Amino acid sequence: MIGPETSAETRPEAGRLRRGGRAAKLGSSTGAFDQPSFRQLKIPFPATEIISEDELEAIHLASLRVLEEIGLDVLHDEARAIMKRHGADVQEGSLRVRFDRAMIMEFMAHCPKEFTLHARNPAHSVHMGGNNLIFSQIGSAPNCSDVDRGRRPGNQADFRNFIRLAQLHNIIHTTGGYPVEPIDIHPSVRHLHCLRDIATLTDKVFHVYSLGRERNLDGIEIARIARGVSREQLLGEPSCMTIINTNSPLKLDIPMLEGIIQMASHGQAVVITPFTLAGAMAPVTIAGALVEQNAEALAGLAFAQMVRKGAPVGYGGFTSNVDMRSGAPAFGTPEYMKAQLIGGQLARRYGVPYRSSNTCAANAVDAQAAYESVFSLWGCIHSGTNFVKHAAGWLEGGLRCSYEKMMLDIDLLQMIAEFLEPLDLSEDALAVDAIRDVGPGGHFFGSPHTEARYKTAFYAPIISDWRNYETWALAGSPTAVERANRLWKERLALYEEPPMDEAIREELDDFVERRIREGGAPTDF
Amino acid sequence: MIGPETSAETRPEAGRLRRGGRAAKLGSSTGAFDQPSFRQLKIPFPATEIISEDELEAIHLASLRVLEEIGLDVLHDEARAIMKRHGADVQEGSLRVRFDRAMIMEFMAHCPKEFTLHARNPAHSVHMGGNNLIFSQIGSAPNCSDVDRGRRPGNQADFRNFIRLAQLHNIIHTTGGYPVEPIDIHPSVRHLHCLRDIATLTDKVFHVYSLGRERNLDGIEIARIARGVSREQLLGEPSCMTIINTNSPLKLDIPMLEGIIQMASHGQAVVITPFTLAGAMAPVTIAGALVEQNAEALAGLAFAQMVRKGAPVGYGGFTSNVDMRSGAPAFGTPEYMKAQLIGGQLARRYGVPYRSSNTCAANAVDAQAAYESVFSLWGCIHSGTNFVKHAAGWLEGGLRCSYEKMMLDIDLLQMIAEFLEPLDLSEDALAVDAIRDVGPGGHFFGSPHTEARYKTAFYAPIISDWRNYETWALAGSPTAVERANRLWKERLALYEEPPMDEAIREELDDFVERRIREGGAPTDF
Repeated sequence: MIGPETSAETRPEAGRLRRGGRAAKLGSSTGAFDQPSFRQLKIPFPATEIISEDELEAIHLASLRVLEEIGLDVLHDEARAIMKRHGADVQEGSLRVRFDRAMIMEFMAHCPKEFTLHARNPAHSVHMGGNNLIFSQIGSAPNCSDVDRGRRPGNQADFRNFIRLAQLHNIIHTTGGYPVEPIDIHPSVRHLHCLRDIATLTDKVFHVYSLGRERNLDGIEIARIARGVSREQLLGEPSCMTIINTNSPLKLDIPMLEGIIQMASHGQAVVITPFTLAGAMAPVTIAGALVEQNAEALAGLAFAQMVRKGAPVGYGGFTSNVDMRSGAPAFGTPEYMKAQLIGGQLARRYGVPYRSSNTCAANAVDAQAAYESVFSLWGCIHSGTNFVKHAAGWLEGGLRCSYEKMMLDIDLLQMIAEFLEPLDLSEDALAVDAIRDVGPGGHFFGSPHTEARYKTAFYAPIISDWRNYETWALAGSPTAVERANRLWKERLALYEEPPMDEAIREELDDFVERRIREGGAPTDF
Repeated sequence: MIGPETSAETRPEAGRLRRGGRAAKLGSSTGAFDQPSFRQLKIPFPATEIISEDELEAIHLASLRVLEEIGLDVLHDEARAIMKRHGADVQEGSLRVRFDRAMIMEFMAHCPKEFTLHARNPAHSVHMGGNNLIFSQIGSAPNCSDVDRGRRPGNQADFRNFIRLAQLHNIIHTTGGYPVEPIDIHPSVRHLHCLRDIATLTDKVFHVYSLGRERNLDGIEIARIARGVSREQLLGEPSCMTIINTNSPLKLDIPMLEGIIQMASHGQAVVITPFTLAGAMAPVTIAGALVEQNAEALAGLAFAQMVRKGAPVGYGGFTSNVDMRSGAPAFGTPEYMKAQLIGGQLARRYGVPYRSSNTCAANAVDAQAAYESVFSLWGCIHSGTNFVKHAAGWLEGGLRCSYEKMMLDIDLLQMIAEFLEPLDLSEDALAVDAIRDVGPGGHFFGSPHTEARYKTAFYAPIISDWRNYETWALAGSPTAVERANRLWKERLALYEEPPMDEAIREELDDFVERRIREGGAPTDF
């Protein structure tokens, strides 16, 4: 167990080796293997809308009724006070808060449509909203696995490996929390160790968990130090984000509300994500689950605007169905996809950036993991998702971060990025002259037009095996998971820590060490 | 080898057991397991268009240039004569035919936008065009496999099993040729044995191979007999279909042209499908491959209209990329998906029903098979595909029909069908009262609203395992392919032959036996 006393030994060593010599290199974290460049992805076509404007309005109105007539239980005294001050119906001695629809919509009007998420390496900053698309690594898995060592609880060593993989791969735009929860670090100081690792082993945007005021403030401060900016500048520039899960149904707990208060007041991004599993924490009908999702999202988003008008926010959807025999959540299902699409319609109605997820229920990196994930990504892309949570690494309903799934997802995400690239339709690409030169019955393999282009013509997958059966069988009949297993090891060996200004590194260490000495954050879990 | 002399022994025995007693039962072929009903699927949202009208026009105009300036080699004398009669530029002593653009577009105007494909069981008829969606079983694989017995060449026994599986499952709307090519039947009589099997073991729409006049005419006649209609009625009702693959680049061979002539003149459906693999039989650029695809498709479609104005046709796309190191075709790739979408835009521009495919390059039913297939299906759905070829069973780039992949695809197709179902947005589904009754912090598991609906609330997958890790591990850590392996055996055991009128059965047998005695079709392959 790594606790407050053992912090010195846990400082990532790789950093020390890099001190001094290497010039700060913006852009790609490594040139050691071929990969697409880091770039802001965009979805170039309109979202698919599966319900009409009238039907969308029905969901909207029903959720307003929920907020007005039923309300939410708001456990945080200060939050209730803020809500009351801004016109919500708050009664003495009760946790229940009801929201008038005009008030909700008035605050919703302040949500920014788009904003930048600033990374400590400006080349890795990303944009939220509009038709922008961000892929983030899995967060919060309690366990991790690889094919060789099997499944095990989260720990610091695997945690570090995973964030290295996030840094290595340009298709992963941001980390998304702790890819695996390192339970060998005491909870009171875990966020300090983990965020220091994230801030040094990666230079991408990161996530701060809303588990109490101290964790929020420590996270914000680490973001500020890592970026090397003043507090003033930070207040105007989202430099980290938090996911706020409402306690569906219709409850907001203290850490979540505190998270909104701290993050929004500091100008940091807050993505409100109800966790509305149909039949469990939400009605068994998808429409009903969406009504509940929408009510909770509106309440959270409006509250963020009450805390600070113009606070950068996102509308998160995590509506899915459950296995009614066991209560286990299902992912990547038709119901999940429909909820994704309608969630996107709702987010666009309110002019708020939209978050969805790449999920699966599978216990192995088999066909099920792949189809559930691709169905989820299908839903993400066609719902106009701006921020894809858990885009890489998720397995077992979120209970496990898998090395092999991480690599598989990286390939899938890279394919999707290629799919979203506009097609070259120049005269040269239309190739009438090449067609003429080859002629009927000819072959394009050796033609000059092909020779000049073939090396970069198509996306080269990192997992897909296109060999014919005989060649593949001779090679030992490798399946996708086996190739993924080889690949994560190869890639990890190529990891290089991104440069960090010495003064910043010292300030970061000083802060983290001090907070560890102070005992970190109070923990009752 | 089953040849002309051994036909009597090969008559499917199941049919004999069913004679007499059972009332003709239209609709579901079996009530023995839960499955969604047979129904005409529809895509309820607009296709995704990834290029603008101007860009589409550029492809269209470039393909017209190809037809005018370069032309196609047309190997069939009669076809050239027909083309010449209708205004094409045909020169004595040359196979090359050039097509004036006005002429092409004049004939294209005759393509019907929609038509019905009539099955011998009217409940299994399907509609082509508009926003209709048809899923067909794999066709033409030379090999087959299952996990127990491994990979083997096609044979009659497996062929029969696969078509039984097609009949059993409502989500498979039509067979799509021979799921596996039974090479233990002599080629000269193979179509007679196979089509008799297809016409008796299934009562769904089927495919006729265009491999020479006799095979076309025999197939058309078998369709007529099976439906129990007159020749006159058949001429006005598409009752079978053929896929015409042009010999990309820019060549039409004799069997293909004969297929257009025979099928179109008899009012049977013809789907022109160029086989334009970028870098091999087409330019290495996707835009160029589409120009070539479009030129060949226009030529074939216009020719079908020359043969018979109003001939029911489809525009087929089969553009993909290849592995430039080996020449092996790649499937389910970003390039494949883009070509699917633009092909759909082209087909809609011409007002012709669109065909695409569910494909993969994978050699095993692993994650790769699943993601390539779901990417392909993603492309099908969002390109407005009307007819999905190889929707179930395809593996190994089309070289293998897999039992396990068949079951996996059935699950995927059923999920997609559920995804396309409009959402219930009634007051009851919006569930405000249920939300009120459960209240903040409550649970929906036991609520009356949930109790009343949970049994049918969600799609129940046949492959997906949603169990938690511990339970799944205790059960032996089954992967998707293992579950698929159990499932095809369970399902096959439930197969029941659909009823067939005795007189029709006799007429069919008489026809097939006579043709076998006559030696079937001439074969030089």
